[in-house]
Amino acid sequence: MKHALKIFACNSNDGLATEICNRLGVRPSQLEISRFSNDNLHVQIQENVRERDVFVVQSFTEPVSDHIMELLITIDALRSASAQRITAIIPYYSYARSDKKDKPRISITGRLIADMLVTAGANRVLTMDLHADQVHGFFDVPVDHLTAIPTIAEHFRQRLDLSNAVAVATDAGGAKRVGRFSERLGIPMAIIDKRRVSDTDVKQGEVVGNVAGRDAVIFEDEISTGGTLISTIETLRAAGARTVHAGAVHGVLCGPAIERLRDAPIDSIVVTNTVHVAPAKRLDKLTVLTVAPLFASAIERIHSGESVGALFE
Amino acid sequence: MKHALKIFACNSNDGLATEICNRLGVRPSQLEISRFSNDNLHVQIQENVRERDVFVVQSFTEPVSDHIMELLITIDALRSASAQRITAIIPYYSYARSDKKDKPRISITGRLIADMLVTAGANRVLTMDLHADQVHGFFDVPVDHLTAIPTIAEHFRQRLDLSNAVAVATDAGGAKRVGRFSERLGIPMAIIDKRRVSDTDVKQGEVVGNVAGRDAVIFEDEISTGGTLISTIETLRAAGARTVHAGAVHGVLCGPAIERLRDAPIDSIVVTNTVHVAPAKRLDKLTVLTVAPLFASAIERIHSGESVGALFE
Amino acid sequence: MKHALKIFACNSNDGLATEICNRLGVRPSQLEISRFSNDNLHVQIQENVRERDVFVVQSFTEPVSDHIMELLITIDALRSASAQRITAIIPYYSYARSDKKDKPRISITGRLIADMLVTAGANRVLTMDLHADQVHGFFDVPVDHLTAIPTIAEHFRQRLDLSNAVAVATDAGGAKRVGRFSERLGIPMAIIDKRRVSDTDVKQGEVVGNVAGRDAVIFEDEISTGGTLISTIETLRAAGARTVHAGAVHGVLCGPAIERLRDAPIDSIVVTNTVHVAPAKRLDKLTVLTVAPLFASAIERIHSGESVGALFE
Amino acid sequence: MKHALKIFACNSNDGLATEICNRLGVRPSQLEISRFSNDNLHVQIQENVRERDVFVVQSFTEPVSDHIMELLITIDALRSASAQRITAIIPYYSYARSDKKDKPRISITGRLIADMLVTAGANRVLTMDLHADQVHGFFDVPVDHLTAIPTIAEHFRQRLDLSNAVAVATDAGGAKRVGRFSERLGIPMAIIDKRRVSDTDVKQGEVVGNVAGRDAVIFEDEISTGGTLISTIETLRAAGARTVHAGAVHGVLCGPAIERLRDAPIDSIVVTNTVHVAPAKRLDKLTVLTVAPLFASAIERIHSGESVGALFE
Amino acid sequence: MKHALKIFACNSNDGLATEICNRLGVRPSQLEISRFSNDNLHVQIQENVRERDVFVVQSFTEPVSDHIMELLITIDALRSASAQRITAIIPYYSYARSDKKDKPRISITGRLIADMLVTAGANRVLTMDLHADQVHGFFDVPVDHLTAIPTIAEHFRQRLDLSNAVAVATDAGGAKRVGRFSERLGIPMAIIDKRRVSDTDVKQGEVVGNVAGRDAVIFEDEISTGGTLISTIETLRAAGARTVHAGAVHGVLCGPAIERLRDAPIDSIVVTNTVHVAPAKRLDKLTVLTVAPLFASAIERIHSGESVGALFE
Amino acid sequence: MKHALKIFACNSNDGLATEICNRLGVRPSQLEISRFSNDNLHVQIQENVRERDVFVVQSFTEPVSDHIMELLITIDALRSASAQRITAIIPYYSYARSDKKDKPRISITGRLIADMLVTAGANRVLTMDLHADQVHGFFDVPVDHLTAIPTIAEHFRQRLDLSNAVAVATDAGGAKRVGRFSERLGIPMAIIDKRRVSDTDVKQGEVVGNVAGRDAVIFEDEISTGGTLISTIETLRAAGARTVHAGAVHGVLCGPAIERLRDAPIDSIVVTNTVHVAPAKRLDKLTVLTVAPLFASAIERIHSGESVGALFE
Repeated sequence: MKHALKIFACNSNDGLATEICNRLGVRPSQLEISRFSNDNLHVQIQENVRERDVFVVQSFTEPVSDHIMELLITIDALRSASAQRITAIIPYYSYARSDKKDKPRISITGRLIADMLVTAGANRVLTMDLHADQVHGFFDVPVDHLTAIPTIAEHFRQRLDLSNAVAVATDAGGAKRVGRFSERLGIPMAIIDKRRVSDTDVKQGEVVGNVAGRDAVIFEDEISTGGTLISTIETLRAAGARTVHAGAVHGVLCGPAIERLRDAPIDSIVVTNTVHVAPAKRLDKLTVLTVAPLFASAIERIHSGESVGALFE
Repeated sequence: MKHALKIFACNSNDGLATEICNRLGVRPSQLEISRFSNDNLHVQIQENVRERDVFVVQSFTEPVSDHIMELLITIDALRSASAQRITAIIPYYSYARSDKKDKPRISITGRLIADMLVTAGANRVLTMDLHADQVHGFFDVPVDHLTAIPTIAEHFRQRLDLSNAVAVATDAGGAKRVGRFSERLGIPMAIIDKRRVSDTDVKQGEVVGNVAGRDAVIFEDEISTGGTLISTIETLRAAGARTVHAGAVHGVLCGPAIERLRDAPIDSIVVTNTVHVAPAKRLDKLTVLTVAPLFASAIERIHSGESVGALFE
Repeated sequence: MKHALKIFACNSNDGLATEICNRLGVRPSQLEISRFSNDNLHVQIQENVRERDVFVVQSFTEPVSDHIMELLITIDALRSASAQRITAIIPYYSYARSDKKDKPRISITGRLIADMLVTAGANRVLTMDLHADQVHGFFDVPVDHLTAIPTIAEHFRQRLDLSNAVAVATDAGGAKRVGRFSERLGIPMAIIDKRRVSDTDVKQGEVVGNVAGRDAVIFEDEISTGGTLISTIETLRAAGARTVHAGAVHGVLCGPAIERLRDAPIDSIVVTNTVHVAPAKRLDKLTVLTVAPLFASAIERIHSGESVGALFE
Repeated sequence: MKHALKIFACNSNDGLATEICNRLGVRPSQLEISRFSNDNLHVQIQENVRERDVFVVQSFTEPVSDHIMELLITIDALRSASAQRITAIIPYYSYARSDKKDKPRISITGRLIADMLVTAGANRVLTMDLHADQVHGFFDVPVDHLTAIPTIAEHFRQRLDLSNAVAVATDAGGAKRVGRFSERLGIPMAIIDKRRVSDTDVKQGEVVGNVAGRDAVIFEDEISTGGTLISTIETLRAAGARTVHAGAVHGVLCGPAIERLRDAPIDSIVVTNTVHVAPAKRLDKLTVLTVAPLFASAIERIHSGESVGALFE
Repeated sequence: MKHALKIFACNSNDGLATEICNRLGVRPSQLEISRFSNDNLHVQIQENVRERDVFVVQSFTEPVSDHIMELLITIDALRSASAQRITAIIPYYSYARSDKKDKPRISITGRLIADMLVTAGANRVLTMDLHADQVHGFFDVPVDHLTAIPTIAEHFRQRLDLSNAVAVATDAGGAKRVGRFSERLGIPMAIIDKRRVSDTDVKQGEVVGNVAGRDAVIFEDEISTGGTLISTIETLRAAGARTVHAGAVHGVLCGPAIERLRDAPIDSIVVTNTVHVAPAKRLDKLTVLTVAPLFASAIERIHSGESVGALFE
Repeated sequence: MKHALKIFACNSNDGLATEICNRLGVRPSQLEISRFSNDNLHVQIQENVRERDVFVVQSFTEPVSDHIMELLITIDALRSASAQRITAIIPYYSYARSDKKDKPRISITGRLIADMLVTAGANRVLTMDLHADQVHGFFDVPVDHLTAIPTIAEHFRQRLDLSNAVAVATDAGGAKRVGRFSERLGIPMAIIDKRRVSDTDVKQGEVVGNVAGRDAVIFEDEISTGGTLISTIETLRAAGARTVHAGAVHGVLCGPAIERLRDAPIDSIVVTNTVHVAPAKRLDKLTVLTVAPLFASAIERIHSGESVGALFE
């Protein structure tokens, strides 16, 4: 009875949590999140968690502040309810993007949120494809950092003739990630040499590497409004790419993203379900891969003390 | 130059912050709060704060989660920008209401947020009329806890004939606060003996004490949807109160509050501006007192090392 | 052998500890508390506690400083002796009364002692009827907060005709506690509207609510010198109460308390054994209820990972 | 006005505190220590301490637990009252004797109290002649560790003909301290080779070194009941010492100490006033040296940022 | 006298420290680092540092473990000697390279050392060109992160005809850094698409981008054995680069580096003096730029509370 | 499978670790320590350690800084790899000698390293014969402090006729240790009254106690260069000792130690293998006792929750 596994889900991504539970053959545990009239959040854990090994699933999707607060309050409630160990499962850790001080007097909020999670009582974190690998080091507790790169690479390997393909990074900062992706597919890489002027306002870039007559596969960690992606598609088309495809782990797909992608000269797009993609956002050319099997295996291994790294060998 | 005073305001209550700055003859310092397309908040401090004595004003009003995150990120940015001391000014600390475990497996979120503020880098806190005095003890850093009770009592002293008045608590939990308020006015007290069934769903109560033929002054720490207040007014009217007035520190006034109060058989209502009361919410019978002078004096004393307690002697 | 349960008692309340052990069928574990000639305390744990689940019973009764130091040193010795988990059982946490700053430049000692316990190595706390519910939030570790209110209410239900009874709070600060008590008995409440001038010197108060011709049941968290209680009895008698009874969780009963109660026009008094009541203090009209069954059940549930909240359902 | 020096004293050694203040030309600051009827301590700082550089004097003398609690509560009150820096001045840190685990399952209470002081809010510590130099390392904050050895050595240099003197350690554990003392006086040393059986029950020892026909000067860090001292005097007399004198820093002099020393064949005894020696304890052969000048100089240097080490050069 | 500036240097880079002091017109403060016969390090601060604003210069060069321990022990000694503020100046923070878990069960040592520095007592850190910007977020204290990119870019602007130049990253991971460098010079970029197989054993890579007939400027954060650099030079020569130059911030230049560079077909190399370059390592084609002016300005601004970011505007 | 025992060894004392594993019938677990070309250390744990009870063996021998860093990085890697509990086994904790501030402005490095170990993630420490017992109190985690004194005493009991023996301390600071040693053998003690002028430069001392015509057994905690030992031997010989023997726990035996001991007029020397004694250092008169059985028993007891103190009863 002791140390039994319990999986809770906050409000951001119930579908993924349910799928994980199904794979593990575990009934989702119940909590109730409500809101007082003064807009304060209120969380009540509905089951005894004493001495249990508890996992809570929450992605940092819109509304991000509410979703973070929900997770923090849930963790605090679990700790105070004497859970034996609390693992925060954050499939999409949005603030990983705030990982450095590229302007004076800003917050490295990726670190701040990591500290908040520990202060609230998280004993471990399980996450996927952080914007930069270094964000792992922001956490003062053990982190298992999964990656969907093999899943997405496999998707393209089965659907594309790779003999003429090239992997493309949308900017220099993404070169390393694309290097890893292209190496796995055994294809060359190119990068777009441009710099972000502001969060949504991008300038047209130059292609470094060869894309003319090739099947270009853009690879990113996340697609939000799709602005960067659209301009990259245009640059690649102008540079003579034969087909253009895109893969990303986190399909945030907010604001005008779906509209833009529907109209863009792109052949296929693939994301995963770390962020819930509402039915209204589904496009024919958009594939949503599930990462539930990866999370389910990781949870099982964390719970039973088996190697998680071995998942990727 | 060193240790100079700087006052910043986040987004919740710019009016109060400006009024405080005006009283102190200090130019409001600048920060920029924006939002990335993935809904992440971004704060940039626009002025050098090295070795400065910095104050940040933020009330926990709707949207509460965003306002808390804004404050935490701002504090983190200030700390990392080498501010000498950071005082979080939280005129309305909404989560003070989550101050105990009256149900199993919930979070004492008033303590959690206190810990978050310290983790982010707050060196002190300045706040007003916490829901319970004990919440002061949730903070691991020095707190100056102001009260608007004298301000509100003075308001009634000047406007009511107190010879026939009685102060009324809306429930047993508020008896102590009303005791303090009634003692200051030299009038007797009564309490409504009822218990909240849920956050908005209240049951009619019994009056303990004498209100028949008297001028009743209901006193609370906050008015949110006004549900409790309305039922108290009805109870008092039914019990034969001659006139009914209400005073509260925090005029949250959310949801149906204004509409309810407009139609209610209440003679006057007074709140303070710890929560911004939008023009659209102004009623003839609603007075909004300013607490800016109290906060301005407290800031001046904190900055110069004079006693804040002496403010109330 | 591992994780076995061990229960130790420091010097304040050996009787309660023994009774708890008897109910659990557990032999009390041995420690030796002595005093060096320079008045330093010395604690030696007499049994191996490695990897054991250890509970230590200590009430904060007179001499309070010694009893607190005994507990802190014992916890430190247990931690350093590699206990697996240490639960401080504090049936009477006297400093819960120092829970706010109602005067300038004082300590919220209820929080300070909570921090001391955690610094010494306590992993959890088990306590009963804290002076204010909010004190729960002073602790940085999980707390199980028991209540003897149902026990005391049940005592009166069996002995009094409740049809004409009224529950009485000795001041506005106690209204909430009495509200809870009266609700459980299904009787109305009244409060004495007076304020404490100093710790022992109380002023006569006014009764808010109806007590004339009724059986009044005063309810408090603790009775120390009995001063407040005596003046309340007098006020109630003067207001025409038919009989007067009193219930309190913590029977500190210090100084002139017993003498005063012996001579007072009160019909019955009931307290619990969170504080040891010496035989010399026994009066015919004083009943001491045992809370050992509650503590024993809580320990059993904490140890085995069952819900403690369920104890009260 | 800022950063001004304030010196407070708790209850253990008002005389030393006053003498220190007089030497510094500083008015002693006021605090009030009282006791609630439930034996809880209550401290109120009577003056504004915001941004002040505050020092609190308290020796850990009988009743030790109360004196420690007084100091902890005072520090907490000062911190919460926004003192700029708090230095705990502990002339006699009694628990330095609990500095190791020489029995299984005991507490190293010297470390525990050090952690308590830091948890309560002490920013620095100023103390004198800790039982072992290593205890300095128990503190997580800067410590200035004064010594009265030069003061006591000077006393003997002026009163004794040192040409035939020998310094004596009462056991092997004190050899190092006596080595330092004898080196300063330029005299040889001897030690009594015995071991303490319990705190008060000592066994007769053997003299290692030569004392026959010599003037023996026993040196210790503290004299409590005098038991060890008396047996050492007897051993030295039996071994042919011509005269016997004793010096110790901390004159705890508790229990039968004064009576024993009055009757003992000892020529002179000297201690300092780190522990208050009541008039009733004064003997003709007992000299009490003041350490106030040392503490006053140290406070002045700590406050002004000058080297404290230089005091001893 | 208070808060005066003091600059100490440990053993790794005395030249840079002296140059910084000269620029600031500050006498270098003295400390003595010695070694006990059991190989323990021993540091003694030779000057009073109470209430001083202290800076300690130490690069993490070979022998790295000794240099880190020297710095930690020095910081601990300064803290315990009551320094007012301690800034660790680490021009070359070697462990920034251990910033992620790219293999299972390894340490993110860049974070570990950051925590060590804070544990030892560092209040702030001043460093230069960390391997990844994210490493900034590993520190729990304010960091000023300087960059020598403008200095190195300026060097090339004055010495090269940039009209035909291209900046080259030695692998995908360096693309971002080279992007920043090339943008400043207004020249295009290329990257070598290869992956490190082990620390010294690199495989030949493919050039992504155009280098034929161009003047290639390789840019890196550090050059250690020169292995990566040599293979990049060869790749560029084979791809038809007209001339090849290299710039790097940290000239570790260990093992066979100097010999390799002497013989390599490279036209010029430039590094800075964050790492001391011994005279024996000087080559005609190797230029060592000084970063002392940058560090001196930063120290001056940190000490006086002016903006450090403004240095780069 | 869970909580299984794993024993790792870093580089300092592989022989002792292997012997411990053999005694426990446990296969030594594998880790790989390498060095990057910039002299950074790199540790990779080669086996899954999730939920395992892990022990790491490392003595702080030359090169001490590297050995400490190896241990810290290994602990960090283990923690981040989710080890259930990490015990640092440090047979020789060299920095225990830096245990006090006997000079101004130095570091109590014994405490600093203790804090580093806890920061890195050590949950417990197992060590042997710390230079001073008080060093135990430097650790914020449970420590099991073993002693080889019985082992060494037994060695002499079997080899010497103790009827005429005397135990000798090399200075006053060692008197307590020798007192314990001599008490165990039932022989008298003497001490050399001299003081160390610097780490290697000792001055001749005077014998306190009787050694003429006796068999002198010098006892120390460690022998490093042997300087102190040699001068003690000479003093004893000059004072007429019949034979001279020496015992020490930690045989650091560095620099000229072996040469000096070979030539010295000493009859036998015994140390333990807490420090690895290379074959080249073996002398006929030098015996190396193994402490592997003690460590093996302690590990077994820590792992299974049995008393470690009982080892010594």
